[in-house]
Amino acid sequence: MGDFVLDKRLDGDTVHVCDLELSEVRLMKDSRYEWVVLVPMVADAEEVFDLSNSDYNTLNEEIKKVASALKQEFNPTKINIGALGNIVRQLHIHIICRNDGDYAWPGPVWGSGEAVPYSEPSLKETVEKVKNLLT
Amino acid sequence: MGDFVLDKRLDGDTVHVCDLELSEVRLMKDSRYEWVVLVPMVADAEEVFDLSNSDYNTLNEEIKKVASALKQEFNPTKINIGALGNIVRQLHIHIICRNDGDYAWPGPVWGSGEAVPYSEPSLKETVEKVKNLLT
Repeated sequence: MGDFVLDKRLDGDTVHVCDLELSEVRLMKDSRYEWVVLVPMVADAEEVFDLSNSDYNTLNEEIKKVASALKQEFNPTKINIGALGNIVRQLHIHIICRNDGDYAWPGPVWGSGEAVPYSEPSLKETVEKVKNLLT
Repeated sequence: MGDFVLDKRLDGDTVHVCDLELSEVRLMKDSRYEWVVLVPMVADAEEVFDLSNSDYNTLNEEIKKVASALKQEFNPTKINIGALGNIVRQLHIHIICRNDGDYAWPGPVWGSGEAVPYSEPSLKETVEKVKNLLT
């Protein structure tokens, strides 16, 4: 088993926010949603059951921590959580703030239109905001 | 807080397979995918962080159990797991077998075309198969 290396496509689509115990926290470069991605820093994991019991528990704690923090800060209508991986196989969990009337509402965000980039200051600000929530 | 009552739309879209410790296991009436839904039998839960720590741990064990069992039985290309709830607010977790070339591949199943009903014998057979995997 090799070392953990972040998938290239995930790396391109997101920016680093901070590291938790198990997972990198990254922000999707799509200003339509507050959209966070957790990437467990474990080599060769694709499905949740590829993780050890201990890592799986840690991941679930981190999912809850991030989802609660996003809810508290952004007060979305609904939080969407998903582990899909049909395109990028490296295990990663999406945690997304959804609001009544947002671009894809009430459908899923994946595959719905094109990402709308943040402005550079706005990206920095959102990363800092999410980082402060989690550290 | 009232008693747990299954959401009417979830009830209509799925059939009961079995009950685990926390969750009802239900099969989506859509023969395009082996598609299971877990519904924690907890009143008024919408987000994962609405659950007690103990229920959240149990739910995660049940997710892993179902995902592993589906992988072993059906050997899909990828398992998709999602808690969305934009339309049905009652907390429910989708666990779906996805295969390269299936109807929505590689997009998400939600909002992709119309469900294709099972024949009555095929529905029964699939329910029995999933039930046997889990009990």
